[in-house]
Amino acid sequence: MATTRFDDEDPNLAALYADLAAADLQPLWRQRGLLPRTPDRLTPHLWEGRTLRALAERSGGLVGIDRGGDRRVLALSHPDLGGLPFATHTLWGAVQYLAGGESAPAHRHSPAALRFVLAGSGVWTLVDGDPIAMGPGDLVLTPGHAWHEHQNRGEEPIIWFDGLDLPLVRGLNAVFFEEGPDELTAFTPGDPCRSEDLYGAAGLLPAADAPLPPASGRHSALLAYRWDNTDETLRRLLAATGAGHGLVRYTDPATGADVMPTMRAQVQRILAGHRTPATRTVGSAVCVVHRGSGSSSVGGHRLPWTAGDMFVIPSWAETSHRADTDADLFVLSDEPVMEALGLARRQTAASVAIGNRS
Amino acid sequence: MATTRFDDEDPNLAALYADLAAADLQPLWRQRGLLPRTPDRLTPHLWEGRTLRALAERSGGLVGIDRGGDRRVLALSHPDLGGLPFATHTLWGAVQYLAGGESAPAHRHSPAALRFVLAGSGVWTLVDGDPIAMGPGDLVLTPGHAWHEHQNRGEEPIIWFDGLDLPLVRGLNAVFFEEGPDELTAFTPGDPCRSEDLYGAAGLLPAADAPLPPASGRHSALLAYRWDNTDETLRRLLAATGAGHGLVRYTDPATGADVMPTMRAQVQRILAGHRTPATRTVGSAVCVVHRGSGSSSVGGHRLPWTAGDMFVIPSWAETSHRADTDADLFVLSDEPVMEALGLARRQTAASVAIGNRS
Amino acid sequence: MATTRFDDEDPNLAALYADLAAADLQPLWRQRGLLPRTPDRLTPHLWEGRTLRALAERSGGLVGIDRGGDRRVLALSHPDLGGLPFATHTLWGAVQYLAGGESAPAHRHSPAALRFVLAGSGVWTLVDGDPIAMGPGDLVLTPGHAWHEHQNRGEEPIIWFDGLDLPLVRGLNAVFFEEGPDELTAFTPGDPCRSEDLYGAAGLLPAADAPLPPASGRHSALLAYRWDNTDETLRRLLAATGAGHGLVRYTDPATGADVMPTMRAQVQRILAGHRTPATRTVGSAVCVVHRGSGSSSVGGHRLPWTAGDMFVIPSWAETSHRADTDADLFVLSDEPVMEALGLARRQTAASVAIGNRS
Amino acid sequence: MATTRFDDEDPNLAALYADLAAADLQPLWRQRGLLPRTPDRLTPHLWEGRTLRALAERSGGLVGIDRGGDRRVLALSHPDLGGLPFATHTLWGAVQYLAGGESAPAHRHSPAALRFVLAGSGVWTLVDGDPIAMGPGDLVLTPGHAWHEHQNRGEEPIIWFDGLDLPLVRGLNAVFFEEGPDELTAFTPGDPCRSEDLYGAAGLLPAADAPLPPASGRHSALLAYRWDNTDETLRRLLAATGAGHGLVRYTDPATGADVMPTMRAQVQRILAGHRTPATRTVGSAVCVVHRGSGSSSVGGHRLPWTAGDMFVIPSWAETSHRADTDADLFVLSDEPVMEALGLARRQTAASVAIGNRS
Repeated sequence: MATTRFDDEDPNLAALYADLAAADLQPLWRQRGLLPRTPDRLTPHLWEGRTLRALAERSGGLVGIDRGGDRRVLALSHPDLGGLPFATHTLWGAVQYLAGGESAPAHRHSPAALRFVLAGSGVWTLVDGDPIAMGPGDLVLTPGHAWHEHQNRGEEPIIWFDGLDLPLVRGLNAVFFEEGPDELTAFTPGDPCRSEDLYGAAGLLPAADAPLPPASGRHSALLAYRWDNTDETLRRLLAATGAGHGLVRYTDPATGADVMPTMRAQVQRILAGHRTPATRTVGSAVCVVHRGSGSSSVGGHRLPWTAGDMFVIPSWAETSHRADTDADLFVLSDEPVMEALGLARRQTAASVAIGNRS
Repeated sequence: MATTRFDDEDPNLAALYADLAAADLQPLWRQRGLLPRTPDRLTPHLWEGRTLRALAERSGGLVGIDRGGDRRVLALSHPDLGGLPFATHTLWGAVQYLAGGESAPAHRHSPAALRFVLAGSGVWTLVDGDPIAMGPGDLVLTPGHAWHEHQNRGEEPIIWFDGLDLPLVRGLNAVFFEEGPDELTAFTPGDPCRSEDLYGAAGLLPAADAPLPPASGRHSALLAYRWDNTDETLRRLLAATGAGHGLVRYTDPATGADVMPTMRAQVQRILAGHRTPATRTVGSAVCVVHRGSGSSSVGGHRLPWTAGDMFVIPSWAETSHRADTDADLFVLSDEPVMEALGLARRQTAASVAIGNRS
Repeated sequence: MATTRFDDEDPNLAALYADLAAADLQPLWRQRGLLPRTPDRLTPHLWEGRTLRALAERSGGLVGIDRGGDRRVLALSHPDLGGLPFATHTLWGAVQYLAGGESAPAHRHSPAALRFVLAGSGVWTLVDGDPIAMGPGDLVLTPGHAWHEHQNRGEEPIIWFDGLDLPLVRGLNAVFFEEGPDELTAFTPGDPCRSEDLYGAAGLLPAADAPLPPASGRHSALLAYRWDNTDETLRRLLAATGAGHGLVRYTDPATGADVMPTMRAQVQRILAGHRTPATRTVGSAVCVVHRGSGSSSVGGHRLPWTAGDMFVIPSWAETSHRADTDADLFVLSDEPVMEALGLARRQTAASVAIGNRS
Repeated sequence: MATTRFDDEDPNLAALYADLAAADLQPLWRQRGLLPRTPDRLTPHLWEGRTLRALAERSGGLVGIDRGGDRRVLALSHPDLGGLPFATHTLWGAVQYLAGGESAPAHRHSPAALRFVLAGSGVWTLVDGDPIAMGPGDLVLTPGHAWHEHQNRGEEPIIWFDGLDLPLVRGLNAVFFEEGPDELTAFTPGDPCRSEDLYGAAGLLPAADAPLPPASGRHSALLAYRWDNTDETLRRLLAATGAGHGLVRYTDPATGADVMPTMRAQVQRILAGHRTPATRTVGSAVCVVHRGSGSSSVGGHRLPWTAGDMFVIPSWAETSHRADTDADLFVLSDEPVMEALGLARRQTAASVAIGNRS
C-alpha cells in the first residue's frame, strides 16, 4: 500500500515487531497487496463442456447418492483460488448429474442456489414441497433456507449447472446447514407447481386476500423460469430494438428485483457476427454457454467457446462477447451484492478507452 | 364535530361572526359535518349495462368526433355528488364508444386513464406512438402525460370502460391538458407493440444495456394486459388455492407495484354459488361486471348485477359479492392513494361484526 | 375540454341528453372546465396577522371550550373556495387561541395536524399522553389517529397556527373522528417528553432492543421541533452556502422523509434585500410569516407581508419572496402528496421564462 | 457435508479424482467443512487497551509517516484467521497513532472507514476537503472513495480506533486504492465543517434548493458525531425507558439508515450492576470499551474488560455484557451486510435457551 520512512536495521524495530506479533497485532506499513489499485486478483478461466459432461458421467458410474445432503456435484475450482472449490471469490459454479431413477434427498442451507438445466428432463426439484419440473434451458431457484430435493423420475440422466453464493456466504461466516429426512417427498408428476401457478403470469399477482404461503421477500416469488419464455422474450427484445444482441434479466415478478439478493441471473443473446460492447464492472460472473459458439475477450485474454462450456469473468476485467453462430449465454453474477453494499462501478467501452474508472 | 358553551343570544357574538366572515375566516365551532365519525358520504349505486350500451350507441349516431381531445364518453355521474360527472370522490368511470372507422385523435393530460374493453375489437390505442391492440377483456393503460389516441380500423363498433383518477387530480388542482395534432399517427395493424415486446414476459426484464425508452417510474412499464392471460391466471389461482373465489391484481412487472400510483386494477373471480367475505376499506371502487351474474351487498344495500353492469363501492362500506353463475368483476379502486398517504384501513368480516375499526 | 361536430338543434339530441340525465350519465362533450390546460383555480390570498390576532382574542372572550373535540379555531377560508373553511384545495390553515388556564380535551381524527406557535408559552400538547411543551416558533405534530389535547398551565394566552390535511382527507372521503374523555390527562410540567428524548438527537436513533412504543411509519417519530434548533440550523446553512436565503425542511429523523405523508413543513429564511428565485410547483402552500417583513410575488400578484401574516400560494403559481428585513417564513405545503401520486412538477425561473412546463 | 456410498478402494475412483483435479474440478462429496451446521469459525478474542496504547506509542517513536497512503496503524489480527491482519472475516479493527504535529496525507479507497477517538484532540480529519475536528468519544466517518487525510495541529498525540470493511471488500475483490498528493490540504482550525453545518441538526435537512455537494446516497450525509451528543442521548434514553442499559445507533440523518451500507456503529451503555440479555446474531462485531469496566460472556467465554480494551464477537456467538462500573461500549458490526443480503438472523435469550435458531 505505501512505504514509510524508517530505519529497517534499527534493533528496536525488530523488538517492536516481535512484541506486536505476540500481541496479535500487525503493522499496516508492513502489509503488501492489502489495498491494490484495482481489483485484479483473478484471471479469466474456461472449463470445456465436453470435459465437464464426460467427468460427470464417469462420476455417475462410480459414486452413488442416497441421503439428505448427498449431491453428485463437480465444482469449478478456479486455479487462482488456492485449491478452493470456488469459481470466483463469491460464486460457486458446478455441474450436477443425476442418473435415471436417482434422487437426492432434501437438505437446506443459508447459501442460495439456482440451477440452469444443460440437458435432460423428467426430473423434479421440490422446493419446500412444491414440485418443479426441469427441462433444458429452464432456470430453477432453490433459495436460502428452503428445503430442496431432486428426483429423477425418468430413465435418462440429467445434467445441470449449479450456481450458488456459497463462497460469499462462507466468507461472511453465515453458513447454516441442515439435512432433511432420508425419505423422499411424495408427489405425482403433473401435480401443479404452486409457485408457477401463482406467480407465473406477466403483470398479474395474486391479491392480498388469497390464502398464500407467506412470502419471504428475500428471493423471487417465482421459482421456475421456462426456456420457451426466455427464448421468446429474447426474440422480441431483439426485434424491438433492432440490435444484434440483447440481455434479459430474470426477476422477481412481485418486485422486479433480482431473483436472489446475492445473485443476478441473465441471458445474453448474440446473433452470428455480432459483438457486445466492451464493459467492465466490479463483481464477478460465471458464464454458461447454452447455445452457439463464439469467443469472448476477457481482461485481455481471448476465450473461444461452444455450447456447454463455462467460463469466469473476474471483477473489473474488460469483457466483450462475439458470436460465430447465434448464441445464448446464461450469466450468473454477484452484482446485486456490489449494488447493495455501495461498491458497484461500471465502465463502458468509451470510458475504458480513456482509462477513466470513476 | 363538537359543541361549545356560549350564549347564542349574545349580540357581541353576532358582531364577531360578521367580522370573521368579512375577514375570510370561519369559526370551527359553527361547522357541521366537517369531521364525520367515519367516511359515509356516498351511497352504493349501479348503472345497468344494457342502458349504458343503448345510450352509447344512440350517442354514436348523433355525435361525431374529430379533433384532438374529442372523445365520445358517457360519464357515470353519482347522484350523491351534486351533478358532478364523477363515479366517486376520486374515480371517473365511463363508457366510451367508437364506431367502425372512427378515430379519436391524440391528446394528453396529467390524469391517468385505463380502458377495460367490454365488446369489440379491431381497434388500436396508440400510447406515445406505440400501437396497442384492443379486444374484449383487455386492459390498456394510458398513463398521465402520455399522448394517446384511438383508431378503429374495423367496421364494428367498440365499447369500453374508461377509468380515470380525474376527480382526484382535479380535486388536487393538478390538471394539465394538451391537445395533439388533428392528424392521426400512421401505423400498420400487426406492427409490434414495444411495451408488450419488452415487458410482456413473466419474470424477465430487459437489462440495462438495452436501447430502451426511459422508464418514468410513475406507472407500469407494461401498457396492455390480455384477457387470455388474466383468465388463465385466475383459473390457476383458484386451482392452486382450492377456493371458490380469487382476486388478481394488475401490476407493473418492473416493480410489482400497482399499474398507476393513483389506481389499483384487479379482477375478482367468483364461482357460481360462492360468496366473498365481507370487507370494508378506506377508499372507493368502481366494479365492472365482465362475466356472469350475481349480487353484491354493499353498505347494507343489495345490488343484483349481470354482465355489463357497473357499480360503485363507497369508502368504508362493508361489501360482499355473491355469484349466481361463474362471474368476473373488473375492480378499479383508489387504494394506492390511501396507502401512499397513510390513510389505508381495512376490516374483514370478523372485525366488522364486532365493530372494531382499528 | 373540446368541441365536437354535431347539430345542436337536433331534437334527438335533446332526447338523448334527457335520457342520459335520467340514467345518471353525463356526456363528456358537454363538460366545460373539466380539464383546464394548467392548474389555475385559485388566486393568491393574504390574511393580516393583526386581524387574525384581534379576532382570536375576541373569540376568546366570547366562546368557551370544554369538552373532547372543542377547539377555539378560526379557519382561513379562501374566498375562491365557495365558502368552504379551507385555505387551499388540500390544506387547512387556522389560528387557534387558548387563554390562560384553558384546556382543550382530547380527541383524535384521521386528518393529520401540526401547530406552529405564533406567541405564548406555558402550554403543553399531549400526544397519546406524551407531554410536549410549546413555545414561540416551535413546531408540534399531532399525527393522524393520535389522541391530542392542549393544556394551558400558565396565565397568558397562546396563539398558534394550525395546519391540517383536512380538505384533502375529506375530499378522499377518509375522515374518521373520535372524541376522548372530558377529563384531562394528568401530567406535571417538567415531565420528560418521550418523543424528544428518544428521537431528538441528530444522527442517533434508539436501537431495536430498546423498549419503545411501536413506530407507525406513517409520520415523524419526533413530534416537537424547537425554534432554537431551527434558527441555528438556518444560520449555519446560510453561513455554509454564503447565500442570502436558505430553506430547511422538517423531517422524520428515523427516515429523512417529510413529517407527514401528506404535508411538507419548511422554513424559508431570507436576509434583508434578498429575493428567492421565481419557482412554480404543482401543489399549494400556506405561508406563515414568523419574523420580518417583505413581499412576495405570487402568480403575478404582489403580496406585502409582515410578522403574523398568512398567505396562500396556489398550485402552479410562479412565486418569489423578497425580504425588507431579515425574514423567516414557515411554509406548509402538499408537495409530498404530489410526489407520492406521480403528479409533482417544478419549474425554476429560467424555464418559467421560456414557458417550458415539462 | 455429507457422506456418500462408494468404494474408496476402487482404482477407477482414484483415476477420476486425478482427472477432476487436472480439469480444475473438485467433487463436492470429498469436501469437508464446506457447509457447517452453524457459523462457528472464530473464537472470541480480546486485546488489552494498555498494550495497544503502549505499542502504538513505541511505534510512534520508531516509524515516521510522510506520504499519501502512509498511516501508523496497528491492526487487530485475530489468531484464528491464519495471520491475516483482520479482526473478523469482514471487519478491520486497529489503533492509529498520530504524534503532535504529525500528519497523514490524503488517500482514498473503496473500503469505508470510521474512527472512534480514544484519547487526544487538536486533530482534524479532512474528508474531501471538509475539516472535521476530532476529540475523545467522537465518531468520524471517512466513506468509501472519499479523500481523507489527518492533521495533528497540536502538540499532543492522538490515538483512535479505526474500523473498516476492508476484509469484506477485499474478499469481494472490489478494492480500489489511490494515493493523493504529498502536500496537505490548507485549512485554518475553526473553519466551519460543511457536513456538520448542513446535516448536524435533529429533524432538519437542507431543502433541495440549497447549493449543496451532491449526496452519494451510499453513506451518511453527516460525517461527525460528537460524544457530548451521544452521551446526552444515552442519558435520556435510559431515563425514558427506565432500563439499566440502552443502545443507540449512529444513523444517516437524511435516511435513518446505518452510517455505511457495510457497517453498523452503535454505543451500548450499561449501568453498574446491570447485564444485557443474551443474544446471538449472524454477523460479527468489534467492541471498543470507551468507559468503565465489566465483563462479557461471548460464546461461552468470559472476557473481563476495562476502558481501552477491544474484543471481537464472532458470528452467532451468544453474547451478554455485564458492567461493574457504568460503562459504554462502542460496537462496530457488519449486520447491515447480513440484512441487505437476506442472511440476518437473531436470537434472544429465551430462544437461545431452547436451541431454536429459526
